Amino acid sequence: MTGRICVLCGGVGAARMLRALVRVIDPAHINAVVNTGDDTVMHGLHISPDIDTVIYTVADANDPDRGWGLVDETWRAADALGRYEPMRPAGSTAGATWFGLGDADLATHLYRTGRLAEGARLTTVTDEIRRAWGVGVTVLPMSDEPAPTEVTLGGNHAGERIAFQDYFVRLRHAVPVAQVHLGATAVATTPEVCRAIDTADLVIIAPSNPMVSIGPVMATSGIRERLEQRRDTVVAVSPLIGGAALKGPAADMMRDAGHRSDAVGVATMYAPFAATLVIDTVDAALADQVDDAGCRPVVTDTVMANPEVAASLARTCLEVGRRSG
Amino acid sequence: MTGRICVLCGGVGAARMLRALVRVIDPAHINAVVNTGDDTVMHGLHISPDIDTVIYTVADANDPDRGWGLVDETWRAADALGRYEPMRPAGSTAGATWFGLGDADLATHLYRTGRLAEGARLTTVTDEIRRAWGVGVTVLPMSDEPAPTEVTLGGNHAGERIAFQDYFVRLRHAVPVAQVHLGATAVATTPEVCRAIDTADLVIIAPSNPMVSIGPVMATSGIRERLEQRRDTVVAVSPLIGGAALKGPAADMMRDAGHRSDAVGVATMYAPFAATLVIDTVDAALADQVDDAGCRPVVTDTVMANPEVAASLARTCLEVGRRSG
Repeated sequence: MTGRICVLCGGVGAARMLRALVRVIDPAHINAVVNTGDDTVMHGLHISPDIDTVIYTVADANDPDRGWGLVDETWRAADALGRYEPMRPAGSTAGATWFGLGDADLATHLYRTGRLAEGARLTTVTDEIRRAWGVGVTVLPMSDEPAPTEVTLGGNHAGERIAFQDYFVRLRHAVPVAQVHLGATAVATTPEVCRAIDTADLVIIAPSNPMVSIGPVMATSGIRERLEQRRDTVVAVSPLIGGAALKGPAADMMRDAGHRSDAVGVATMYAPFAATLVIDTVDAALADQVDDAGCRPVVTDTVMANPEVAASLARTCLEVGRRSG
Repeated sequence: MTGRICVLCGGVGAARMLRALVRVIDPAHINAVVNTGDDTVMHGLHISPDIDTVIYTVADANDPDRGWGLVDETWRAADALGRYEPMRPAGSTAGATWFGLGDADLATHLYRTGRLAEGARLTTVTDEIRRAWGVGVTVLPMSDEPAPTEVTLGGNHAGERIAFQDYFVRLRHAVPVAQVHLGATAVATTPEVCRAIDTADLVIIAPSNPMVSIGPVMATSGIRERLEQRRDTVVAVSPLIGGAALKGPAADMMRDAGHRSDAVGVATMYAPFAATLVIDTVDAALADQVDDAGCRPVVTDTVMANPEVAASLARTCLEVGRRSG
């Protein structure tokens, strides 16, 4: 009975949500619009971390312990790269080994880079890659254009402006962020994303970092206004549970940016374009404040620790959407 | 007693010659000028096949059976790339798996590509790579500029013009070549190569393919004229033995181009810039014709089947050079 749905996605949290959704409804009815603000070029290769996490996870090929990359991965290329790192001159970052490049994962970057060099759109290449993995969900980059997220650091690094992966992986997001700069503000989304939103009966905002995962998607020209116009059928899932993210720096980043670092803070950010916010049972006491912030609260288990909870969360989102529509 | 030497190099044959030379004289006195006409960009990565063969071989890290790449190599990335090959549209060559990319070898391409993207010269990057491998020989690309060798095919492929690696690896050089196009004719060599030739007491032309290995080096502006001016102290080693190359299509290519496909043909090509040609004992009967073609013949074992023969060949070249100088 459920029609088409469109899911706005970051990395791990969104990927788990999608994996649950494909077990509840036909994947052919799902479009995933994925953050590309984390995309980077390393060693000449175009890397799309969130797209890969989504595809690998829906394909059940992700490494569940590491949280990124492929299961049963090997690291010969990365190990061999270590030979060159000491040879590079001061100021060079070539051969850097802090960004994990598994051998099998490398193939994805090689293929993507080769196709982009031929002039293919990232949307086209992404579709080829998800089909190669037998993924039935349509996976759409938020834009075909580069839209790098950067951060200006605080603390001991005050004033330093670096690329997102530099902060997130190299510095292990252990440094305060003074400001987030979204390259997405300068780019437009694609016809495919517009169509995915316009034809969806329900839009789900996955439990991803509001600042640097959902933030770039919403900042991409053409997306936010589409959601605002249909906010009654937009359901978001709070990535903050008991004032913390399951993974990553979302809570710290929101606090550093002057937001409340809990479900109420998420509601305040999302209220203009999402009528409903699904919050975790541990945050049941925040329901009234979420309501006051402008989102109708729906309370349920949101920690997708096992397939049953994940499926239940997916069903809840679909039911909420059905009631709204 | 031997001063500085400069060796003009292609791939495997030259690499074996260099490995023998470093056992006979101080590697710090050897400059290797290497063909980059085979260089290619695959999957966004800059690949320099002859440079890598030379460095890996002198480092004793090459695979002796395969003839290219690293020993004890693994192929996870290449195998994983196979997943994508069927997904690419007609006309695309992305994700092609015919060019062997070992996992450890990939690290070399990743580092080189990253450094070139930072604006480093190929000469600089090559020096970093050879030092990372503990190679004492200075390895110099013939040029910092792209100088792609292409071939126009004959036979069933008549008229098709393709990149060298396409012909050499993908088509396994099993197709007649109607014409060789040297991108090197449009580029200049480097100050480092000029200095290496100018300061050498002896120049050795390694036993490499005269058409597509030594040909590009000699076609690079600044090299041929330097050798012509000092041809008395230029010693070449014939890559053709009994009218055939130990490896590769040299004999067929020379025949297709209208040359004799034997040591006499090599002498005719090299006489303007090499006073001496070392030929194999099986070609002793050709010595007079080599002389008539313009090169003083030196007859010895040239098949470097074991370290002793290789060292003996290296010593012969050095002695010939000493007598000439």
